[in-house]
Amino acid sequence: MAEQDLRFLGELAAQLRVDSVRAAAAAGSGHPTSSMSAADLMAVLLAHHVRYDFEDPGNPANDHLIFSKGHASPLLYSLFKAVGVITDDELLSFRKRGSRLEGHPTPRLPWVDVATGSLGQGLPVGVGVAMAGRLERGPYRVWVLCGDSELAEGSIWEAAEQAGDTGLDNLTLIVDVNRLGQRGPTRHGWDTGAYARRFGAFGWHTIEVDGHDPGRIHEALEQARDTRGRPVAILAATRKGAGVRAVEDREGKHGKPLKEPDVAVAELGGRRDLRVTVRRPERWAEPRRFEGGELVLPEYKVGDQVATRSAYGEALAALGAARGDVVALDGEVADSTKAEEFAHAFPERFFELYIAEQQLVAAAMGMATRGWVPYAATFAAFLTRAYDFIRMAGVSRSPIRLVGSHAGVSIGEDGPSQMGLEDLAMMRAVYDSTVLYPCDANQAAALTVEMADLAGVSYLRTTRGATPVIHPPGERFPVGGSCVLRRSTSDRATVVAAGITVHEALAAADTLAAGGVRVGVLDMYSVKPIDKAVLVEAATTTGNLITVEDHRPEGGLGDAVLDAVCELGPRVVKLAVQNMPGSATPQEQLADARVDRHAIVAAVERLI
Amino acid sequence: MAEQDLRFLGELAAQLRVDSVRAAAAAGSGHPTSSMSAADLMAVLLAHHVRYDFEDPGNPANDHLIFSKGHASPLLYSLFKAVGVITDDELLSFRKRGSRLEGHPTPRLPWVDVATGSLGQGLPVGVGVAMAGRLERGPYRVWVLCGDSELAEGSIWEAAEQAGDTGLDNLTLIVDVNRLGQRGPTRHGWDTGAYARRFGAFGWHTIEVDGHDPGRIHEALEQARDTRGRPVAILAATRKGAGVRAVEDREGKHGKPLKEPDVAVAELGGRRDLRVTVRRPERWAEPRRFEGGELVLPEYKVGDQVATRSAYGEALAALGAARGDVVALDGEVADSTKAEEFAHAFPERFFELYIAEQQLVAAAMGMATRGWVPYAATFAAFLTRAYDFIRMAGVSRSPIRLVGSHAGVSIGEDGPSQMGLEDLAMMRAVYDSTVLYPCDANQAAALTVEMADLAGVSYLRTTRGATPVIHPPGERFPVGGSCVLRRSTSDRATVVAAGITVHEALAAADTLAAGGVRVGVLDMYSVKPIDKAVLVEAATTTGNLITVEDHRPEGGLGDAVLDAVCELGPRVVKLAVQNMPGSATPQEQLADARVDRHAIVAAVERLI
Repeated sequence: MAEQDLRFLGELAAQLRVDSVRAAAAAGSGHPTSSMSAADLMAVLLAHHVRYDFEDPGNPANDHLIFSKGHASPLLYSLFKAVGVITDDELLSFRKRGSRLEGHPTPRLPWVDVATGSLGQGLPVGVGVAMAGRLERGPYRVWVLCGDSELAEGSIWEAAEQAGDTGLDNLTLIVDVNRLGQRGPTRHGWDTGAYARRFGAFGWHTIEVDGHDPGRIHEALEQARDTRGRPVAILAATRKGAGVRAVEDREGKHGKPLKEPDVAVAELGGRRDLRVTVRRPERWAEPRRFEGGELVLPEYKVGDQVATRSAYGEALAALGAARGDVVALDGEVADSTKAEEFAHAFPERFFELYIAEQQLVAAAMGMATRGWVPYAATFAAFLTRAYDFIRMAGVSRSPIRLVGSHAGVSIGEDGPSQMGLEDLAMMRAVYDSTVLYPCDANQAAALTVEMADLAGVSYLRTTRGATPVIHPPGERFPVGGSCVLRRSTSDRATVVAAGITVHEALAAADTLAAGGVRVGVLDMYSVKPIDKAVLVEAATTTGNLITVEDHRPEGGLGDAVLDAVCELGPRVVKLAVQNMPGSATPQEQLADARVDRHAIVAAVERLI
Repeated sequence: MAEQDLRFLGELAAQLRVDSVRAAAAAGSGHPTSSMSAADLMAVLLAHHVRYDFEDPGNPANDHLIFSKGHASPLLYSLFKAVGVITDDELLSFRKRGSRLEGHPTPRLPWVDVATGSLGQGLPVGVGVAMAGRLERGPYRVWVLCGDSELAEGSIWEAAEQAGDTGLDNLTLIVDVNRLGQRGPTRHGWDTGAYARRFGAFGWHTIEVDGHDPGRIHEALEQARDTRGRPVAILAATRKGAGVRAVEDREGKHGKPLKEPDVAVAELGGRRDLRVTVRRPERWAEPRRFEGGELVLPEYKVGDQVATRSAYGEALAALGAARGDVVALDGEVADSTKAEEFAHAFPERFFELYIAEQQLVAAAMGMATRGWVPYAATFAAFLTRAYDFIRMAGVSRSPIRLVGSHAGVSIGEDGPSQMGLEDLAMMRAVYDSTVLYPCDANQAAALTVEMADLAGVSYLRTTRGATPVIHPPGERFPVGGSCVLRRSTSDRATVVAAGITVHEALAAADTLAAGGVRVGVLDMYSVKPIDKAVLVEAATTTGNLITVEDHRPEGGLGDAVLDAVCELGPRVVKLAVQNMPGSATPQEQLADARVDRHAIVAAVERLI
């Protein structure tokens, strides 16, 4: 690299440090020292390696730059200033109310793919973007900046395995090994070899480099670009707070603005106003997409016994035929979730992530940033493994579709480890989420299709065992709706059910009717958003509601119903799984948990 | 090894296979083929290496045997039969209602430490047991059996890093590399070298072995026992369903009983009734424990401004001085959670798990099995990373104490990635959990102590910023209780708050009182169990409740209150965080989320 280029890079890195210090000083908080360590790395990357049209963030040929160490946001925003897409004034709005420049980056900024700040997430999401790149034969590269502390997260190694095993050579990880975590020294300090051995064992090409030497950094990035068949990890030894003696490589300086920012800026050579011209990507005709066609949903005959998970699998395959943008992701249980129907039909658009649920969800997020429509499925219970990713997908407003099978005690003999009993609570609490829980095969198939065009995180809960088909083929089930299955003017109460308990509620209603007691039955297939109008009507007419769910009493259907009617004040009895189940048959489990037909009858009799 | 010993081991392994086949056949479900692959490994381990007094499972010198591949429960139960602690009749009760022999093992069996069945958990928990072994200078060893599929879980690599870096040579991992997962071939098939390279890179000693050769297995286990300074991973190539041609090394045979069990039993040489005598451990005087003393809680003056997280740290240090069995675990944020107070005072009992929340919770579970009283703390938001472990701790009834700091939007500028907004929903849904949320420093200190003697999973939610001390030192806060902060006979409504919103509620009550409107204020520091009596009284007297929480509307305080009073039918208005926060000051955040004093005043005015 020419002397003048090196000089420019040195100046640019100094500017990035200065602006990081200034932004944090203006905010009175933030992470300048974590930004300063990576300034040289990002200066070289931006000026010589990234291909990005900052005038058109939607250009499909643009590279992707993901700050997995989201707390280095001052550095990221300083980069945005250096390329001219934000002003110095906006830079100084960092962390202030209303500013797009939040404490940790979010996609409110058009150049940010996903929200980061929960460590260990950017790399797995980057793997998802790189998977999409391979699928669509994209010319773009994915660059991920990680801190060294976050390499302790298991999700990093799920990503390392996925990327290494599938040879994602469009992915480059840059690790800012600044030796100091939030609390003190990291486990491996500056032993970049320790990290290199680990990534190497997972099949990556690794490069150890001085993270403050622009020439070496440039060579490493060139080598990364030229490496074929393997992802590359650049392990860069750096100094936290590099460039300012008061903070450089010192403990206790994490996540704080510098005490004397003006002195620091002077030490760094003062303010600069360099502009970087980032190379635009080559023109790329079109991302590869797959052909679609007419949607021909499977149809199930009323009265047949079909598991909702089976209907999900068949509907997903039908959707895959109709829409070329649908992809399916599996946590090595596709034979159980029935996503294998899709795998057989569209092997190119099916992704096996093995038993790595964090990477499963992150891959969906990554592919969604590229416009794919991902459906990721595993057991409902095991989605708990990825809750932090799902939470952050909510922050990102990432349009991902999650499917949890084997919900509730009704799975039977396998016991509590396999039962999704907290999933409704978990998914409902996610920002702007949609939570759907079909009771029969036609409903499950229709809701599978409904999910395709939803914004944000959506969730479909399916049941292991076969349940009777009660809704005819062709019936519509809009999100936010419900089905009135029983209603009469003489109803003494209304039973509100979803999924498997709908069938228990119908049986209970029949038993009660035989004894002269009429009750209404609602099928609340849309748990969030919930059909408030129909619940309010039931609350004001019968005045007595019984909710019944194959889920813990906290945060599920019952709470959703209460939330909808609480300002009216009807009497509500909640039936839910209070016990710790062991092994038993499905019907024994429902009875032991007191969410079966007999429990419903007893609750109605007690209430009226 | 002598010929006759080898012959016995072959017979024993055959018996374990036969009994696994029989148990699954009797149940009509289960995982016999996953049991059969590991039968030789477990036969050798049990007959020659494990030290365990089966007549006294509470003997502190006993080894620990953890089936991380919990679905191999037929094999585990066949082992228990072979040592004579369960009968053949009980073996055949496998997976039947009421049987202790559940589909996946749980601590209902006295020889089982923790529930497994969610893959990738047994090893991290085993690491926790081994950490306890080192702390108490125990003579016992920890043996963990993993499947190969579950090595895809990131939690395995969190465990590998923790054990490798700290050189836990009392831990041996045995991996049953049977090449076939649930759905089909694993990523690495029989390439035991791929796994060996990975564990080796993380600092483990590794041994590759034929998992059906008892002599070689014995040598490997001896080598594991003799290895100093490093944990050992034995990577054993095996055949799923080994011993029965109809299923051996065949796809599509996972998780199903054999079609012709009698033929299979005959092929395996028929039923046997061998008994194994497991060597008892040497006598060991006493686990090392630390001295305790008097409990001297920190005291905070009413009116002072103190963060509840600070009070947690100081109280934990005080508790550590009073009780030698208390240990603290950190996810590399002890300076934020304030667990560093304990770290300074009791470095031997403080464990840094770095940013690996799954291993953090698993280590707590492992240490709890040894009688330690663990407190594990990180940001409330990041506990979502470990939700599957927390859920399984509930299944295990594991007495672990979790502490989540930086709850809610009130953290301010850092933005949504750092805000615990789903933690109450997540923690409340866990079986038999306790959820505590103090509003001031004296309450936080007292609740920290209350947690020490709780069964099951307990959770303390703390706040980042300083809040006024309103409860005098010495006040008691029993779990399940609450504090009536404002009450009069002329109350028009009752505001139900917890944590930071208590102060907003008091301010709102003052504002309203100035305008002639009296409202009650309840401090619900115990979110689960909740003080139903006081809520019922408020519901029946004022008839109007306003709940206000710094949490999502789903599954938190508001839902807990509704659950308590829903059968009475008062009118309830829930105030909670509906928006997606950005960066802003704490008070701006509370206002934007409409959970501040002004929002409460407006809600009261609307309601009455």
